[in-house]
Amino acid sequence: MDRPRHQGMVKNTYMRWRLPLVCLLWEVAMIVLFGVFVRFGPEADAHWEEEKRELNLTSDMENDFYFRYPSFQDVHVMIFVGFGFLMTFLKRYGFGAVGFNFLLAAFGIQWALLMQGWFHSFKNGKILIGVENLINADFCVGSVCIAFGAILGKTSPIQLLVMTLFQVTLFSVNEYILLNLLHVKDAGGSMTIHTFGAYFGLTVTRILYRPNLEQSKDKQGSVYHSDLFAMIGTLYLWMYWPSFNSAISDHGDAQHRSAINTYCSLAACVLTTMAFSSMLQKKGKLDMVHIQNATLAGGVAVGTSAEMMLTPYGSLIVGSISGIVSTVGYVYFTPFLESRLHIQDTCGIHNLHAMPGLIGGIVGAITAAAATEDVYGKEGFIKAFDFTGMYQTRTPSVQGGFQAAGIVVSLLMAFVGGAIVGGILKLPIWGDAAAENCFEDEVYWEV
Amino acid sequence: MDRPRHQGMVKNTYMRWRLPLVCLLWEVAMIVLFGVFVRFGPEADAHWEEEKRELNLTSDMENDFYFRYPSFQDVHVMIFVGFGFLMTFLKRYGFGAVGFNFLLAAFGIQWALLMQGWFHSFKNGKILIGVENLINADFCVGSVCIAFGAILGKTSPIQLLVMTLFQVTLFSVNEYILLNLLHVKDAGGSMTIHTFGAYFGLTVTRILYRPNLEQSKDKQGSVYHSDLFAMIGTLYLWMYWPSFNSAISDHGDAQHRSAINTYCSLAACVLTTMAFSSMLQKKGKLDMVHIQNATLAGGVAVGTSAEMMLTPYGSLIVGSISGIVSTVGYVYFTPFLESRLHIQDTCGIHNLHAMPGLIGGIVGAITAAAATEDVYGKEGFIKAFDFTGMYQTRTPSVQGGFQAAGIVVSLLMAFVGGAIVGGILKLPIWGDAAAENCFEDEVYWEV
Amino acid sequence: MDRPRHQGMVKNTYMRWRLPLVCLLWEVAMIVLFGVFVRFGPEADAHWEEEKRELNLTSDMENDFYFRYPSFQDVHVMIFVGFGFLMTFLKRYGFGAVGFNFLLAAFGIQWALLMQGWFHSFKNGKILIGVENLINADFCVGSVCIAFGAILGKTSPIQLLVMTLFQVTLFSVNEYILLNLLHVKDAGGSMTIHTFGAYFGLTVTRILYRPNLEQSKDKQGSVYHSDLFAMIGTLYLWMYWPSFNSAISDHGDAQHRSAINTYCSLAACVLTTMAFSSMLQKKGKLDMVHIQNATLAGGVAVGTSAEMMLTPYGSLIVGSISGIVSTVGYVYFTPFLESRLHIQDTCGIHNLHAMPGLIGGIVGAITAAAATEDVYGKEGFIKAFDFTGMYQTRTPSVQGGFQAAGIVVSLLMAFVGGAIVGGILKLPIWGDAAAENCFEDEVYWEV
Repeated sequence: MDRPRHQGMVKNTYMRWRLPLVCLLWEVAMIVLFGVFVRFGPEADAHWEEEKRELNLTSDMENDFYFRYPSFQDVHVMIFVGFGFLMTFLKRYGFGAVGFNFLLAAFGIQWALLMQGWFHSFKNGKILIGVENLINADFCVGSVCIAFGAILGKTSPIQLLVMTLFQVTLFSVNEYILLNLLHVKDAGGSMTIHTFGAYFGLTVTRILYRPNLEQSKDKQGSVYHSDLFAMIGTLYLWMYWPSFNSAISDHGDAQHRSAINTYCSLAACVLTTMAFSSMLQKKGKLDMVHIQNATLAGGVAVGTSAEMMLTPYGSLIVGSISGIVSTVGYVYFTPFLESRLHIQDTCGIHNLHAMPGLIGGIVGAITAAAATEDVYGKEGFIKAFDFTGMYQTRTPSVQGGFQAAGIVVSLLMAFVGGAIVGGILKLPIWGDAAAENCFEDEVYWEV
Repeated sequence: MDRPRHQGMVKNTYMRWRLPLVCLLWEVAMIVLFGVFVRFGPEADAHWEEEKRELNLTSDMENDFYFRYPSFQDVHVMIFVGFGFLMTFLKRYGFGAVGFNFLLAAFGIQWALLMQGWFHSFKNGKILIGVENLINADFCVGSVCIAFGAILGKTSPIQLLVMTLFQVTLFSVNEYILLNLLHVKDAGGSMTIHTFGAYFGLTVTRILYRPNLEQSKDKQGSVYHSDLFAMIGTLYLWMYWPSFNSAISDHGDAQHRSAINTYCSLAACVLTTMAFSSMLQKKGKLDMVHIQNATLAGGVAVGTSAEMMLTPYGSLIVGSISGIVSTVGYVYFTPFLESRLHIQDTCGIHNLHAMPGLIGGIVGAITAAAATEDVYGKEGFIKAFDFTGMYQTRTPSVQGGFQAAGIVVSLLMAFVGGAIVGGILKLPIWGDAAAENCFEDEVYWEV
Repeated sequence: MDRPRHQGMVKNTYMRWRLPLVCLLWEVAMIVLFGVFVRFGPEADAHWEEEKRELNLTSDMENDFYFRYPSFQDVHVMIFVGFGFLMTFLKRYGFGAVGFNFLLAAFGIQWALLMQGWFHSFKNGKILIGVENLINADFCVGSVCIAFGAILGKTSPIQLLVMTLFQVTLFSVNEYILLNLLHVKDAGGSMTIHTFGAYFGLTVTRILYRPNLEQSKDKQGSVYHSDLFAMIGTLYLWMYWPSFNSAISDHGDAQHRSAINTYCSLAACVLTTMAFSSMLQKKGKLDMVHIQNATLAGGVAVGTSAEMMLTPYGSLIVGSISGIVSTVGYVYFTPFLESRLHIQDTCGIHNLHAMPGLIGGIVGAITAAAATEDVYGKEGFIKAFDFTGMYQTRTPSVQGGFQAAGIVVSLLMAFVGGAIVGGILKLPIWGDAAAENCFEDEVYWEV
């Protein structure tokens, strides 16, 4: 490393005792709580042979593992390689991008297994986990990875661990309200993951506003090879998004349909992104930032409706629109957000997750409201929206209303939660770097 | 970017209106055609519960999604990361390699869903799609990615979109002739994907011959890290090729067998490639170009026969030979093709796809001709070659003849189609760069 | 390449005839042996329809392909991209890391199919292979990749091929002793793969000790981008490790449970690694070497017990401990091993595989010894430990004893085998480079 040491570091970024303390404290807490609460679900427990007999299952293939494990692995890649590498575009923050994403996600999935477990898999005092819990934990952490994108390069690893602790908690509460109280459908998480995660992150970065950030402007760009590393992240997110949106859908047609809708939406999104990237630039050249990010908006925007009968052409339309909105966002909104609203959004999550997330919520509400027994079939209609038990009499238009309410709740949770957590992260004890040292791996890493 | 602006750009590479126009036009056409034609197949439709009852299926596991989705995702990775990164070896064309591959494939899969749908999944005026259609669309686009390899660095994104439009069309016609009219087997597409795609691309690049290409010779090489990026592409193609060749095989033993044959062939191919790479170089050192490419020839060369009873040792033989042929091709044929036949083949697709594709077609014909009821079993024999209906009386040797005919048809389609499309791409309206600016991202990208 | 030519190369690293000869000889031997011995197993053979009828199977889904193929592909990625890229951290040895790993693994899987086949899949004079054989071959080669990590940068490709030949052989013998004679459980290979592979490699590198290795000290470090390439390897190993440990477990709950235990262990491991990486460094900064390696120790350390009822919190504990042990190893043990024991361990496999492998073996022995019918259920208990036939009366504590014996046997095989193979590799005929040219791609590659 031939870079000169930075002078005038006024902030204390020394991590030696603080970071280990937080990591170990967090992990010990996890061990204790797992010890008290977490056990294998019936399909992962050695008693499965008895379970099989009870449920009259003739084949091991009926184990949920085989329905969901391939999708789980794809989602896992999206969280760790997808988000991790997408953020390596910064020329001097590749270690932080991949490494801190790794850290927060590894902690987050443990905490999410607990939080979501208490809400959804709690039985006789125990949380019973299986492959679906692993997917949901990854999903939950996805929303933290999104928020991380807004504050990338400006926060210490301790701040990220603190944020993860709170955000996973709030995510789980919000998810419970939406899925259980409002009985909303959100297979790919347009509302619970993207809208919530992005507006939460944007609120946090607003609270953490750094007026002198232009001091590290030179490091906020990319270099040739860092852009190629970022494309690894982009492509893995793009390719595996059909798995993301279908991972926890009902077995059979729903998983199948979610994958197809997402595949179509993403394909369309690439073309409109390229079109607008060239169109909005005076020289007509393509901008890697758009290709790396806006091409993914199509996956976000069908997150809620992918498992519904959106139809392939509906998906193309949604994907096309979201690519346009997202690219326009990078060109016009991001600078506006920074200069006027003091929202410094390093990765542009407003364009990739916030706006497409809202589109996704709205498309989901409309698609639900437009559902008919004719299109879904009598059984399919009930199954698709779970119109059973206390929801037996709910109509599509009422469902559409609840879906819309889900967007509002997610936004409120994000704003209020983000403001509180942002306030906590503003305390001068977490070891974040001075403005001139932002976007610089040397602060926290041996380089 | 500290590179000096190029002077003397005589060609107009300004994309601002042309590229957006083509992208948006293409995408709007897709939306309209999808709206008119494309619907969910029965296994992805919400009526699936009724379908299940009708077909007497007791488990959601019988949905084709679970037979093919993991392979689909592997194929998807091959198309977008495999081909995309394989082509990043050029020192200054990484954005173009990954980005344009992304663009053309995203458009191509939409158009392929339609074209292949009309030929193979058309029912009552609608194209009914499921996971197998997604795989086939990716396959079809694979042939365009191959052709892209020949003209890499020398064409504008508009030319690529135009080529994709035509090539997908021709691919689908050729595929229809082979699979439906000649009743040929070609699970991994040695003929339909590799032979057709490669000779199509070679014909196109012949027509687009640039006599002054040595002006950009300095940019036609690799640098250390670009070669490592390319290895990402190579390895993903190599690892997932068993999924490629087995993705659309019959359920059960055929998928299983295709994967094993391909695994064996590829393993053998690596050793002969390394051997000849060292042997053919005076200093005895290994050449990254060979390792990146020729190691994959084994996957191409068992494309047709992988689902047949080729046997593991047969696969080793085929893989060994194709590695040798491919490496020899890089050392001797590529320079010959350029200097004598004026075929400028940037990635050497003649060695990786064309020759191994032909080998694959021939091996397939021989393996089919050599099939016996003894080796396949009575039922297995009929099932493997679909000797039912009007093909009930076809004998193995006749099948071998038709397989051979399939090679010839693919070659003809490639030459004639490539010549026509090459002629269209030669029109001076598509914005390709001057010879001195080839292999240079700065022409179309903000760098 | 602007590096000056090295002067004073006293060793003959000319590969032109030696490398091709070995590659071709090895491959011809494979073809002959495959021709004599290897055939498709019943689930990959075209007679499968008859087999299905005999076994009364109603669905193609019961083909083992669908139970294991997704895991197989994940394991495949770990071997070729995971290990390959993990080792690219060296600034000037990326080609060798990825390329030689590719070469030795491609040969190794063929030879492993034979060796393991003779021991485990031999029937009527033929080795019958299916997807499980492919996984086991990849596993076996994994142990060679581990050993490669110790000698990385210091050996010629010929030495690697020779080592692979012997190590695969010894691995298979050791595996046979453990699995068949001792009736030991080792799903994820803590003993057979990691303990054996690592101590084998450490013994080999001890025998090949190079007193003047500090002459190439400047090349033994990483640069910024090489560390990012290595993170690709790390993350793929980390993400897919649940597939590794569950790939050959029994269908149903065992595969499901293995994946969950591994997921938990790995997550915990990341936090303790980060904690100790920061704590053990005076400036409190994180060290990429630890993040790249020690975060994976959690996967190794639950290799034996993952399919047992270790429980999620048990996994967290094991993962936490192994992350600590591994990180401490990098800081204190590796320098000690080099200076005192003359063990030059390029990648630190002692920390990533050897010690965690031992932990894994011990945890497995304890978990087995602690098993009760209450925890596993009557049937589950028998199934989990295969207490049938001649093992019908074996008790958990006896099983624990045999598990412990498995560790000892693996260590002995590794030390004795490594010493012999190291002696063979020390012969001055294999073309390894002089100390000053170690860790340098230019020796064997066109750069």
